[in-house]
Amino acid sequence: MRLCKTVEEVRSFINSVRSEGKTVGLVPTMGYLHQGHLSLMHEAKRRCDVVVVSIFVNPTQFGPNEDYQTYPRDLQRDAGLAAEAGVDAVFAPEVAEMYPPGFSTFVDVAGVSEPLCGASRPGHFRGVATVVTKLFNIVRPDMAFFGQKDFQQVLVIKRLVEDLNMDVRIVDLPIVREADGLALSSRNVYLSEEERKAALVLSRSLSLARQWVAEGEKDIARLKELVVREIRSEPLADIDYVEILSIPHLKQMDVLQDKALLALAVRFGKTRLIDNTVLEA
Amino acid sequence: MRLCKTVEEVRSFINSVRSEGKTVGLVPTMGYLHQGHLSLMHEAKRRCDVVVVSIFVNPTQFGPNEDYQTYPRDLQRDAGLAAEAGVDAVFAPEVAEMYPPGFSTFVDVAGVSEPLCGASRPGHFRGVATVVTKLFNIVRPDMAFFGQKDFQQVLVIKRLVEDLNMDVRIVDLPIVREADGLALSSRNVYLSEEERKAALVLSRSLSLARQWVAEGEKDIARLKELVVREIRSEPLADIDYVEILSIPHLKQMDVLQDKALLALAVRFGKTRLIDNTVLEA
Repeated sequence: MRLCKTVEEVRSFINSVRSEGKTVGLVPTMGYLHQGHLSLMHEAKRRCDVVVVSIFVNPTQFGPNEDYQTYPRDLQRDAGLAAEAGVDAVFAPEVAEMYPPGFSTFVDVAGVSEPLCGASRPGHFRGVATVVTKLFNIVRPDMAFFGQKDFQQVLVIKRLVEDLNMDVRIVDLPIVREADGLALSSRNVYLSEEERKAALVLSRSLSLARQWVAEGEKDIARLKELVVREIRSEPLADIDYVEILSIPHLKQMDVLQDKALLALAVRFGKTRLIDNTVLEA
Repeated sequence: MRLCKTVEEVRSFINSVRSEGKTVGLVPTMGYLHQGHLSLMHEAKRRCDVVVVSIFVNPTQFGPNEDYQTYPRDLQRDAGLAAEAGVDAVFAPEVAEMYPPGFSTFVDVAGVSEPLCGASRPGHFRGVATVVTKLFNIVRPDMAFFGQKDFQQVLVIKRLVEDLNMDVRIVDLPIVREADGLALSSRNVYLSEEERKAALVLSRSLSLARQWVAEGEKDIARLKELVVREIRSEPLADIDYVEILSIPHLKQMDVLQDKALLALAVRFGKTRLIDNTVLEA
């Protein structure tokens, strides 16, 4: 497996595999890889001849008071996991390689980026859309793979790709969870043992919501209220948002119709976790 | 020559020439072609195997009180001129092909897009950067050709390409002028006979400025004052801006050093014209 640190190195690798007529899959990540990332790599490997994983903790998608500095990093371990997964190249640039002095271009996706994490993390999706545009231009993948844990991110990227006529297919894959239901996240390492237990309220409240819907509850305000009540039953949980919005436009609604996204962002101590499920009427 | 109206048609054409290993040059235009555009096509033809000209009056780069509706259009004549110039394909999409319902992504280049036309036409360069990003993604050219009459646009696009890692070489070519000095522009058709004569003050004041510099004048405020005075000597001229800024960052300065851009935007009746020259210390 190749480890590329510069745009030039990864481009030269891509050019060589392209000249052999091979298809390329990209798995963009911020590293500290877990089984969620690995499921993306396995699917990429299944569907593309060559798989590139980018590992880049992207500063422009973090707010000034967020965890950019402390975000967990372990490139050596990540490279080992990627190699085991059959990845052909890891692209792990330094910040100055992606944002050299004078950098001043940003990509904004309006609409779908505005509620949920867009509201509670101003500038987050601007940073995501910008770095994803750069990565797509550098790697020029046929397909790119994203996890549904960042459900809104998937919607933003699909919008971005369609609006800017990017010639890449976006593949999104289900959330991978621990046996007890906790969605895998690189940020889970921040959790104390107590917070780790408390965080189970996320997947539990999502399951309950699906159950309430199955039992006939279609009133959005009522469903949100029940989820909020469930989460508040956990004293360590501090709600950032609990929202139920339409798919794919993420608009408010009064009554559940077709499919809707139930999305949560909740703090446990200093750790902000997100989780979601699709509710089907 | 092919005339493509849809993204799919032009992509299919590009894919076929790419599969033959040919290089592709793109000349993005808003149509109503003149010798300035044709000089870009000739250079593109010289440097690339296949040349695509896009003809699209891009609504997102016009302000609400600008001339989007009245901008001159003549696709049949343009297609004839492009064919004569040896162009291989014209891409002339409808607005809904480029901006379908739900479109919501924009590209912003900060810094270099802010003074000059960026200040007097808010949102203009956002529209330019967005449509150019789309055209580059649709055509995937090896090279793209722009005229120096829109000098700031060239700087914005070079910044865009570098920042977003677009794999395209930007080639910029000199302003083409009428025998009497008027810079070619599709907007020149708006001018009455009287305004057409008055508009010669633009190229005349640029020549005078170069002459003053050659004679030793390096004080920026003084040079601007002389240019403003010259333009004001023409009663039909209504100055939007007269600026002298550094290249390539378009920063203010007090004394001419190395190269600087002298850029003008002046109205003659309802017609706003731009012109520029590079002053060399």
